[in-house]
Amino acid sequence: MDDPVLLTGATGRVGTAILDGIGDDYEWRCLARSPPEDDLPGEFVAADITDEDAMNDAMEGIGAVIHLAGDPRPEAPWSSVLENNIDGTKTILQAAVDEGVEKFVFASSNHAVGAFETDERTPEMYRTHDEFRLDGTELPRPGNFYGVSKAAGETLCRYYHDHYDLDVVCLRIGNLTKNHPPIDYERGQAMWLSHRDCAHLAERSLEADYDYEILYGISDNDRKYYSLEPAKEAIGYEPRDNSAQFDGKERVD
Amino acid sequence: MDDPVLLTGATGRVGTAILDGIGDDYEWRCLARSPPEDDLPGEFVAADITDEDAMNDAMEGIGAVIHLAGDPRPEAPWSSVLENNIDGTKTILQAAVDEGVEKFVFASSNHAVGAFETDERTPEMYRTHDEFRLDGTELPRPGNFYGVSKAAGETLCRYYHDHYDLDVVCLRIGNLTKNHPPIDYERGQAMWLSHRDCAHLAERSLEADYDYEILYGISDNDRKYYSLEPAKEAIGYEPRDNSAQFDGKERVD
Repeated sequence: MDDPVLLTGATGRVGTAILDGIGDDYEWRCLARSPPEDDLPGEFVAADITDEDAMNDAMEGIGAVIHLAGDPRPEAPWSSVLENNIDGTKTILQAAVDEGVEKFVFASSNHAVGAFETDERTPEMYRTHDEFRLDGTELPRPGNFYGVSKAAGETLCRYYHDHYDLDVVCLRIGNLTKNHPPIDYERGQAMWLSHRDCAHLAERSLEADYDYEILYGISDNDRKYYSLEPAKEAIGYEPRDNSAQFDGKERVD
Repeated sequence: MDDPVLLTGATGRVGTAILDGIGDDYEWRCLARSPPEDDLPGEFVAADITDEDAMNDAMEGIGAVIHLAGDPRPEAPWSSVLENNIDGTKTILQAAVDEGVEKFVFASSNHAVGAFETDERTPEMYRTHDEFRLDGTELPRPGNFYGVSKAAGETLCRYYHDHYDLDVVCLRIGNLTKNHPPIDYERGQAMWLSHRDCAHLAERSLEADYDYEILYGISDNDRKYYSLEPAKEAIGYEPRDNSAQFDGKERVD
């Protein structure tokens, strides 16, 4: 990817992990509603993703988009995810195809499929002996309105892929934490995504060839209920971390 | 279903087919934005589905909902389907679970999967020898924003089914025309739904036991690319019409 990459939601947790890992490897245009506290690489644009004109301006000359912006709260009310996550994603997809962007990386979420974690399946599905796997071909079962909005975003991405020359990868991102997996939280360990695996996932999403993919983004954890095979095959994702490596170790914040 | 059935979008094409067929068999509360030109059975409520208070009032004492209301235009702009079809469906689902409604029948659409009809597959997939079938387990591929909104409605239904005691059937309705199938239109003949099969589909959706289903609603056409097996198995749908019966016949409007 030689053209600049637009990173929306650049100041959030996922954006920070990406820029920490591959901030020096691309020409970035970072976008967020408020200016960052720390220096970010490349240009910075302060804008709201629901602002159509601002998105069209921000898209100028862009080759790829990593779209992280939106209301990130699992407990976000419907009105907010309807506006920021559903309508906002449509706005930025439209701006991307109008500009002729090649690749669109959409930050979806484990919450799009949270309701697969039924009382019957849990906590067994979080444990290493359990063989239940989701692989991205299943229909969404959101655990909350935030998850509904992410599933709707995936469908919008599908629409724009099918009708325009835009390749899209939807990353159902797990539980991103820095340095170590969540402590005493089996579910979080099963869907842990380390910072360096997150940055690698973004790098593969910018470099690989694909059409439209829904991929799970977690580290190579012993505990897991998301298959990593689709991400390995589709974009060459090779995670290096595993939440089991931290079992029994002292917490190192 | 002994309690009254709320029929939203009662004055539209699908509502008319349902009431023509089973209008005498249930106690209806018919809802539409504007009063009907002809008499409808039961009570009539003039209200907009985006009006939360009006929806809560309309839901009082209701046992089942057939939700047809929304912007029905395949070419409807995003702003309209976002408000009427996505937000409107959330409003009525919330009102339904607040009232303790048992069954929710959601009028989805063939447009939720319209982009499966690629240049490579068409027109062969519309012909009797072709074996391509969609069965409702596939991820959506909307052909337009209307289809995006219907796919989002299905996901909202899934959320409300998983989190509340509400059974839901999403009907991906084909091409509904009265008396005879579309003329000289292979695609329309492949997804034809006759008026009496439409009413029967609604009757089965009110009477059968199910959890959450996505079912294709078409007649038993020789030409087809939607499987009828899921609807037959899940709700006992037994279509009686077939667009092939009209081949070579004079048009009888």
